[in-house]
Amino acid sequence: MQILRNADLPAAALPGIDYVTLACSENGLASLSVWRQRMEPGAATPPHSHDCEEVVIVESGTGEVHVDGRVHAFGPGTTLVIPPNVVHQIFSTGDEPLVTTAAFSATPVGVFLLDGAPLPLPWRS
Amino acid sequence: MQILRNADLPAAALPGIDYVTLACSENGLASLSVWRQRMEPGAATPPHSHDCEEVVIVESGTGEVHVDGRVHAFGPGTTLVIPPNVVHQIFSTGDEPLVTTAAFSATPVGVFLLDGAPLPLPWRS
Repeated sequence: MQILRNADLPAAALPGIDYVTLACSENGLASLSVWRQRMEPGAATPPHSHDCEEVVIVESGTGEVHVDGRVHAFGPGTTLVIPPNVVHQIFSTGDEPLVTTAAFSATPVGVFLLDGAPLPLPWRS
Repeated sequence: MQILRNADLPAAALPGIDYVTLACSENGLASLSVWRQRMEPGAATPPHSHDCEEVVIVESGTGEVHVDGRVHAFGPGTTLVIPPNVVHQIFSTGDEPLVTTAAFSATPVGVFLLDGAPLPLPWRS
């Protein structure tokens, strides 16, 4: 068993989005990965999909998830269930940062852009 | 994709511990389950193990996890990585409730007591 201090874990970023991988294959896990991300107001992920299941828990802030041309708004206290291979894009739409916890059913997590190209991640997945 | 309001999800309890399953097989997931639990001061889980991997994120409060006769204290901003079949017991040791998010690499999640007997859960897993 491992006990990790989140503040000691390495952080990484995309523009406007800070990521910390809380646990992944480097902690001995075989099929579970957990990240926490903080998206500044106005920030957005690229449209992307994963090769595994994803559950996103909205801790604070407000946002939108765009799927299949539809816009779904959400606030704190919301959980998103995203099946494998579903293209989604998440936007931070409020005045405060959007803070989420994401759990994935694989590690490392495959992330793919709209054209199917893998997105190399600057953080452990 | 599903967007769930956590406050609308059914809650369940063991003595001193409230559980909400944020996402599980009933949401179409095949190998990922996410719960949030709130343990009152002094509450404890039974010693138990799972048939899958578990990551516990400590949101607030303080506690201990007992594994193999060793006591590990933890506070907020801590992540516990618990491999399959490792017997563990979690205690809420502070003056405030211990609130945690737990992600599992299976759904439903098997929970087993010290004697190997499965623990029937009063919540979706």
